[in-house]
Amino acid sequence: MNIYAYEVLLAFVKQAFLHAGMSEKHAADAAGVLLAADMRGIDSHGIARLSGYMRLADKKRINPNPNLRIIHESPSTATVDADAAIGLISAPYAMQIAIEKAKTAGTGWVAVKNSNHFGIAGYHAMLALKHNMIGIAMTNASPLVAPTFSTSRMLGTNPMAFAIPAAAEPPIVADFATTTAANGKLEILQRKSLDAPEGWIQDVNGSSSVNPNELSNGGALLPLGSDREHGSHKGYCLGAVVDIFSAVLSGANYGPWVPPFVAFLDPPSDPVGDGIGHFFGAMRIDAFRPAEDFLHHADNWIRTFRNAKRTNPDQPVIIPGDPERECEVIYREKGIPVHPAVEHDLQKLGERIGIRFGL
Amino acid sequence: MNIYAYEVLLAFVKQAFLHAGMSEKHAADAAGVLLAADMRGIDSHGIARLSGYMRLADKKRINPNPNLRIIHESPSTATVDADAAIGLISAPYAMQIAIEKAKTAGTGWVAVKNSNHFGIAGYHAMLALKHNMIGIAMTNASPLVAPTFSTSRMLGTNPMAFAIPAAAEPPIVADFATTTAANGKLEILQRKSLDAPEGWIQDVNGSSSVNPNELSNGGALLPLGSDREHGSHKGYCLGAVVDIFSAVLSGANYGPWVPPFVAFLDPPSDPVGDGIGHFFGAMRIDAFRPAEDFLHHADNWIRTFRNAKRTNPDQPVIIPGDPERECEVIYREKGIPVHPAVEHDLQKLGERIGIRFGL
Repeated sequence: MNIYAYEVLLAFVKQAFLHAGMSEKHAADAAGVLLAADMRGIDSHGIARLSGYMRLADKKRINPNPNLRIIHESPSTATVDADAAIGLISAPYAMQIAIEKAKTAGTGWVAVKNSNHFGIAGYHAMLALKHNMIGIAMTNASPLVAPTFSTSRMLGTNPMAFAIPAAAEPPIVADFATTTAANGKLEILQRKSLDAPEGWIQDVNGSSSVNPNELSNGGALLPLGSDREHGSHKGYCLGAVVDIFSAVLSGANYGPWVPPFVAFLDPPSDPVGDGIGHFFGAMRIDAFRPAEDFLHHADNWIRTFRNAKRTNPDQPVIIPGDPERECEVIYREKGIPVHPAVEHDLQKLGERIGIRFGL
Repeated sequence: MNIYAYEVLLAFVKQAFLHAGMSEKHAADAAGVLLAADMRGIDSHGIARLSGYMRLADKKRINPNPNLRIIHESPSTATVDADAAIGLISAPYAMQIAIEKAKTAGTGWVAVKNSNHFGIAGYHAMLALKHNMIGIAMTNASPLVAPTFSTSRMLGTNPMAFAIPAAAEPPIVADFATTTAANGKLEILQRKSLDAPEGWIQDVNGSSSVNPNELSNGGALLPLGSDREHGSHKGYCLGAVVDIFSAVLSGANYGPWVPPFVAFLDPPSDPVGDGIGHFFGAMRIDAFRPAEDFLHHADNWIRTFRNAKRTNPDQPVIIPGDPERECEVIYREKGIPVHPAVEHDLQKLGERIGIRFGL
């Protein structure tokens, strides 16, 4: 794989967003959020999705000049109409409101409607950390997941992220889809023509399948837990909570009505709300106990878990966020590898919009 | 199994708690919370645990006359010192504070330290429903669960519950352990001398085990997801978030320091906080959008998911909370079945404290 400096990719993404009609500030901000995924090694959610966002903009499903605004609020809450903004812009906007609310009310909670995909949830949750707050971010997404006992695709992979500050230790950052496997994992298997493990997907009849292309045949991703005996009803509950907090609280589309990310599929013709929905939270740690006490014990929690007895001496116990942070250190120094298929896609995009992509 | 009227069991539990030294009001309230578990069919967390609570009271690990109080607060938050109260009392006390905070601030969030086990999380979350609020409840618990890649028991089954109001439909009530299987499921297999499914437990070396008694040999329960390939790191994240919200925010014991529920095991001699911890939330739905809009769409969400296409025509898709609510209707009319082993245990308890248990 060819390696690109962060700044090179950032400049290209910003140019693309400017070409889509975004303001200088929005294009720069959105490019930074998108590339945060690549930097953290979550390459399914980074520059690999740029063409997808651009196609949504072409179809006028992303508004490059949105009027983001609060449409409802209380001392600790707000609801935002993102005016069809790209989620890469609406999510940090909403998270900032949550942080401001938390400064005065102790916590802040913001539901967002009329938005689009927001990149990685963890990025937004982490915005709270420098304020000594716990950050929470979640979003609904294109319906690909079947509830337990169903063959219908009713939920997205609906990720949730939690960012928890510590003192001397790096923060805990948990960011995960509420399914057994994220869609990006299937894409990797498709590229390599490999079978998926049992428990990730079901076929159109609800039977277990190992075909990573099963979703094209009407199959579905499975909620975290895989099957009833292993707790898939709990994964279904988590996906449902994310959907309801993100969309039923905000006035966005929920369940099977969530507009697909892929521009070649039209959104449902009978929407129950506006765009997709997100939900954010910020909790000031000193709204619960003195910050130094919390931070001291967070350090102790992290060290205790990191030093827990290993099953395999060569595989340390992981603190959520460790792998992504370690990846970021390497990529910042050495550059970001871009998969040839993504490289090719970006070259084509570059030709179309008149910006050269390549080394 | 013999069947007991709710009122008969309630009277016995109340008498037991009075015998432990609780006030009339606390004994009645705690008895109602405990039996809510039996009524909802979660019999592992109901009257079957009465002897366990009584043994903790005998050891002075439960304070029958606690001075529950707020020790820290902000407009939307509070931290409660439960003064070693039984969790059946401290949890509703804290949830009520969350609800009162939400009335003025839009949301309310309460962390509790120095508490004991609180029964079923769903009961406490549901207290928010009649106020047209979403309720959230979670708690840490005795360490029985190994993080991914570890053989150490570091987390409890750490349940989380979400209660979401609707209009014409019954509310959504999701209440689940963040492990693949709850400990109560193992107890059922132990009684029947049956193997556990793969993916529920590991042995002392971290290898998969189907022995439901494996925890006695130093084994551990597995986080939701069972193994790395099926997302156990996500279940570990969920258990970690519950632990940190419940205990690091409040000043309770966390991770391996959580005092065991069983009275024959002493709490760790080097505590990092006070008692066990809980975390509660209440969110006013009209702090996000007009209540009637939310309730209308919650109904639509519920009907859409309940009518999703079935894998098996005889097995409907379940809305979280449906089975428990249906159980409650039956048990309220026909009485609550009590397992012979539990019946025998309650008879022995009755003899010890001078209150007859039986038909």
